[in-house]
Amino acid sequence: MSIKIGLLGFGTVASGIPFLLKENAEKIIAAAHNDLEIAKVLVKDEDEKNRLIAAGHDYHFVTNVDEILNDADIQIVVELMGRIEPARTFITKALEAGKNVVSANKDLIATHGKELISLAQAKGVAFYYEAAVAGGIPILRTLANSLTSDKVTRILGVLNGTSNFMMTKMVDEGWTYEAALRTAQELGYAESDPTNDVEGIDAAYKAVILSQFGFGMTVDFDQVSHKGITTITPDDVAVAQELGYVIKLVGDIREVASGISAEVAPTFLPQNHPLASVNGVMNAVFVESIGIGESMYYGPGAGQKPTATSVMADIIRIARRLSDGNVGKAFNEFARETRLADSADVFAKYYFAINVPDKSGQILRLAEIFNTEDISFEQVLQQKANGEEARVVIITHELSKTQLESVIAKLNAVEDFQVVNTLKVLGD
Amino acid sequence: MSIKIGLLGFGTVASGIPFLLKENAEKIIAAAHNDLEIAKVLVKDEDEKNRLIAAGHDYHFVTNVDEILNDADIQIVVELMGRIEPARTFITKALEAGKNVVSANKDLIATHGKELISLAQAKGVAFYYEAAVAGGIPILRTLANSLTSDKVTRILGVLNGTSNFMMTKMVDEGWTYEAALRTAQELGYAESDPTNDVEGIDAAYKAVILSQFGFGMTVDFDQVSHKGITTITPDDVAVAQELGYVIKLVGDIREVASGISAEVAPTFLPQNHPLASVNGVMNAVFVESIGIGESMYYGPGAGQKPTATSVMADIIRIARRLSDGNVGKAFNEFARETRLADSADVFAKYYFAINVPDKSGQILRLAEIFNTEDISFEQVLQQKANGEEARVVIITHELSKTQLESVIAKLNAVEDFQVVNTLKVLGD
Repeated sequence: MSIKIGLLGFGTVASGIPFLLKENAEKIIAAAHNDLEIAKVLVKDEDEKNRLIAAGHDYHFVTNVDEILNDADIQIVVELMGRIEPARTFITKALEAGKNVVSANKDLIATHGKELISLAQAKGVAFYYEAAVAGGIPILRTLANSLTSDKVTRILGVLNGTSNFMMTKMVDEGWTYEAALRTAQELGYAESDPTNDVEGIDAAYKAVILSQFGFGMTVDFDQVSHKGITTITPDDVAVAQELGYVIKLVGDIREVASGISAEVAPTFLPQNHPLASVNGVMNAVFVESIGIGESMYYGPGAGQKPTATSVMADIIRIARRLSDGNVGKAFNEFARETRLADSADVFAKYYFAINVPDKSGQILRLAEIFNTEDISFEQVLQQKANGEEARVVIITHELSKTQLESVIAKLNAVEDFQVVNTLKVLGD
Repeated sequence: MSIKIGLLGFGTVASGIPFLLKENAEKIIAAAHNDLEIAKVLVKDEDEKNRLIAAGHDYHFVTNVDEILNDADIQIVVELMGRIEPARTFITKALEAGKNVVSANKDLIATHGKELISLAQAKGVAFYYEAAVAGGIPILRTLANSLTSDKVTRILGVLNGTSNFMMTKMVDEGWTYEAALRTAQELGYAESDPTNDVEGIDAAYKAVILSQFGFGMTVDFDQVSHKGITTITPDDVAVAQELGYVIKLVGDIREVASGISAEVAPTFLPQNHPLASVNGVMNAVFVESIGIGESMYYGPGAGQKPTATSVMADIIRIARRLSDGNVGKAFNEFARETRLADSADVFAKYYFAINVPDKSGQILRLAEIFNTEDISFEQVLQQKANGEEARVVIITHELSKTQLESVIAKLNAVEDFQVVNTLKVLGD
């Protein structure tokens, strides 16, 4: 018997699925314990349907989703449309119709996952989305299956290929943000409106999902603070290098005494940190835990075949569970009460780049301000004096987010100081 | 109801299991859908038993394995004794008694896994061994569960922490092999007889197991060629660095047209290869596949808590499958006919270090010999002329193993040439 699949959407990722089904048929059928068949494919309209047929695609294309939802033979619906609507409505209807659903839609899952997961549970069907985080890296299933015995204390991730490509160019080649963005757009890595990638929004979606799998806590998207790479200058990159660091956009989720903290921000990574050598469009998730200690999962964060491979792994898992009769199990069974960390309880070292008047005594003035917040310096560099203005760069010892906000407010209150940038610094 | 576990052996790894059960009790019980209880622990003799009790260990220690094998309440037997016997006999008896077995014993699984896996299948019980390859890295389950949809074409692994620690010291600090070994022994990373680690035997065991999970083929241990790091000199390390490479002991399993090839050998890795920055005792498995493309799994290769975490993940999986009623499923279901690659079909670039007389015309003589085997040079360096002898270093274009053997034989037949080392070179 073959298991019938309905595809919603036939864009880049979706067309990777026939590739895998063809190139790897024997292994997939053996793993799924069944043949898998793409029974129907939803496309936007007749135009798209005719274009795909003319291009030689031999599927049963439909333009009305009900043809899939009302088809009792279709057991698995694969949503690869992206964005919130109509994906949310279609997935909801599919789950309500008792169909198992696979999706790669991180925006949707990060913002409406809770309701969809509950619905799937209530209906006793599967809702899997391995491809939603770090495309080709099998990180969600690994957290759910292999780190079950472990207690994760922190997840650090290079989770957005576009911004990582840009930061790699800015670090390795000294490019400006603008030049890096232009090239990313030319290469098709960045969209014409790159906001989601460069402002850390896309990475924050992924952090929401990782929080559930790593820590069993459901953090809402607006509880993940995000800061993008748009303010990073060649000066920041150069001083990072001088001090032994690489700047990358890093998602950082950790559990401290008071609860969970999740944020996305450009971060100083020590050059010998395993994440520091994750370059170009590659992604990686670095996990700190009490059992394994440190482990890292590296691979492509996007792309047709990598994403299709993760989608296909979900499909196979559903097929197996259909034959085992336990398809209703949650993708992630780890759930605890969600507690958000107090800002006073979330510590890190920080980099400050501050413009000060180019005259003596400025470092003393800065030190006095930091001292009122009980913040001490690990490293101080004075740079770029031009007679009028000088740049002071400080790497602090650890301070809390509360201290960070206070000291920035105090620095901003000083008329002749200008806080150019503050970035988190990893390392002991 | 709690699921009862019998431990065979209470050494370093085994004592990491109570740590996880205590520190992570809530998550483990939720994941296992059951409480887990260490019901009995087999130790060697009364002396060890008394010593452990005196040290405060509150378990039911037994000195006769039959007390575990004949205990109908024990559903999971965890073998952490190491070596072949009596582990092989005990596991065989446990499987015959219908018990599920978890083991971390790579030597045993690489050499007698086939019979144990068949026995487990025949008895409808589980036989899992995630910890046998790369300790804390969940690579086997990832290959079995997440890469099911993908076709793996090559697995490259830094699979032995001891030799990687030594190579890291030799590369980063310029240490000799002997100095690196001495320090590894002082730090407890290397045993007094380091043969298994430094000769690539331990890594070859892991390559056997990876072949099954990655390629569905059962390669015997003696079909994995292995070459150790004992012949690597500071000269080799220095010339590698000069040419942009790092030398590491790498397990290399790939499928070529004629079949599968598995070997362990010191290898020139391009400095920007993800495996090149895997340092110290860390391990990593780099997977090339048609779907994901390139992915890497990085973590500690050994150690109490990492290994115990992998063992615990196996135990949890068995507990879940016991409640699902499908515990008899194989750890790895991917199996194809095993075909070994022809040497003529396995290609790589190679590094040759050859001592020649210190007079003109030697590179021409070398080039003529390589030319008879149709091998061309990518790079040639002449080094270290002392008036009598000169060192010529060659990096070839790709050649087959057959060509490699022929050209080495021809070079060895020349009285005043001395082939000092030949190493595989990765990269385009």
